[in-house]
Amino acid sequence: MKALVIGAAGFVGKYLTAHLTEEYGDTVYATKLPSEQPELPGAEVYDLDILDQEAVSDLLKTLQPDCIYHLAAQSSVAVSWSRPDLTVDINIKGTLHILEAARSLAQKPRIMLIGSGEEYGYVKPEDCPLREDTKLRPANIYAVTKACAENLAAVYERAYGMWIVSVRAFNHVGPAQLPQFVVADFCKQAVEIAYGLREPVIRTGNLTPKRDFTDVRDIVRAYGALMRDGRSGEVYNVGSGKAMAISELLEEIRNLSDVPFRIETDPEKLRPTDLPLIEADISKLQSDTGWKPEYSLSETLIDTLDYWRRILKKEDAADSLTK
Amino acid sequence: MKALVIGAAGFVGKYLTAHLTEEYGDTVYATKLPSEQPELPGAEVYDLDILDQEAVSDLLKTLQPDCIYHLAAQSSVAVSWSRPDLTVDINIKGTLHILEAARSLAQKPRIMLIGSGEEYGYVKPEDCPLREDTKLRPANIYAVTKACAENLAAVYERAYGMWIVSVRAFNHVGPAQLPQFVVADFCKQAVEIAYGLREPVIRTGNLTPKRDFTDVRDIVRAYGALMRDGRSGEVYNVGSGKAMAISELLEEIRNLSDVPFRIETDPEKLRPTDLPLIEADISKLQSDTGWKPEYSLSETLIDTLDYWRRILKKEDAADSLTK
Repeated sequence: MKALVIGAAGFVGKYLTAHLTEEYGDTVYATKLPSEQPELPGAEVYDLDILDQEAVSDLLKTLQPDCIYHLAAQSSVAVSWSRPDLTVDINIKGTLHILEAARSLAQKPRIMLIGSGEEYGYVKPEDCPLREDTKLRPANIYAVTKACAENLAAVYERAYGMWIVSVRAFNHVGPAQLPQFVVADFCKQAVEIAYGLREPVIRTGNLTPKRDFTDVRDIVRAYGALMRDGRSGEVYNVGSGKAMAISELLEEIRNLSDVPFRIETDPEKLRPTDLPLIEADISKLQSDTGWKPEYSLSETLIDTLDYWRRILKKEDAADSLTK
Repeated sequence: MKALVIGAAGFVGKYLTAHLTEEYGDTVYATKLPSEQPELPGAEVYDLDILDQEAVSDLLKTLQPDCIYHLAAQSSVAVSWSRPDLTVDINIKGTLHILEAARSLAQKPRIMLIGSGEEYGYVKPEDCPLREDTKLRPANIYAVTKACAENLAAVYERAYGMWIVSVRAFNHVGPAQLPQFVVADFCKQAVEIAYGLREPVIRTGNLTPKRDFTDVRDIVRAYGALMRDGRSGEVYNVGSGKAMAISELLEEIRNLSDVPFRIETDPEKLRPTDLPLIEADISKLQSDTGWKPEYSLSETLIDTLDYWRRILKKEDAADSLTK
């Protein structure tokens, strides 16, 4: 297949382009913002700002892809509070531009929209595991825009006979994730302690919430499988199906990193509201594709700790060179 | 109260501004687009394009209203298919601009968002009467944007402690409605027949669907009541609570207009899909405000026929003058 990955410069994009090439032999086109410099071996890379409707339309006409993975988003909840307008533009109008450009192609490509478990919003523990038909009650502006994009896709799917699948992805983890995410943050701190770069204290937010974590390499396997075996018009949860408390993750990191540390609460990392439990029901994904996660939590954490060892060693070496 | 009606130049705006002045003695500010020329006696009228975030913010700072009725919208389903971008801009970003401007005022005004029964979308007869907690399955781009604006409002209400009520209004009828709406269309045709301006044939679309019609004068009474007695954070259906087949309406027009006519199907008026039944459950509106419709269908139709008699007589007179 000729696959177009829109917004490929982020955490997931790199894994997805690699997976599509290696697993399926897809010809992969990837887009990034002009300011981004991702390494995407094997992909043909194009600059694209999805806010530019004409540019989206032109690129689709030129490439005539068989399928589109739409990953481009303003994906930070925090930024969505400070820049709601931009969040609406990128997440809603950007998606609209892709849907409009795709529907006017003679050969309409398959489209996968990447949404978020955030769309469920105010989730009560008794709602878990969350089925896709649960009523969405988005609790922040990011989540509202993602739910809206999903509704737009449903309208286009039905009105124009397009093949569209929407996913709601739950927490991702894995090597190369940015340290504003909790697992990357803890792994980085643990390696910093091991390297003597900080005192033996890991600073944390609230440790009791339970979240549904999946290795990014399993996530992209689900996307590839759904693009082939998903049913058009359906929404799919993509997650592990098993929630785990943040505290359990931290204890596992303690075991694997073999570094003694204390835990201290960092008031800056506490959030005003944290839902106690978010867990996906993944039976639809599993029954339609046969997908199941391949990476255990330990494997993910070992690889993530290794990643930070490489990064921090490099930085350390660079530091010594410049001294 | 100092009430600001945003988007007052439309069908509902004129009735609402009049009602707020007469019933409550409100000081009414009203906004319109520069191109619009509404008659809004008793209201102080301002030009405002809600796409201009700064202009919205400036006007709210200047007026410091106690409450805002947000009626401005791209409200045509047909236009939403041809101009999805514009529909997102006006209905989502326009609403966002009002929410943002209101939240930054020292004295935050009450806000009422006007949504639509269209938000429910694919409604099965067994879902009726539709309660507000029914899952929304919007079936067109207009409906998607209205549902999104409502979700944004819910987020602002909770995150910033604002007083916000959203309504989902069902079919409006009454004098001065534009003839692209079914009741106005039939009444206009009946009067044209009576005046010998057309052959005795009323051309119709599908007559079997049942819809929930309410006189616009009752609708604005509900809005005024909800601004006072509605509960912040709630969504309210505003309708009659009783669906009626289009064919019944037409028969009532036949009785009241006292004009013999045949009925012919106009293929141009047929829609690809018409849901058989849409009917609102209005128990929440009624129990919170005590509101009930005051206009019977016959009264509404008599007034609407009278309206068209005045309009067409005027046009007729104007025509004779120019001949």
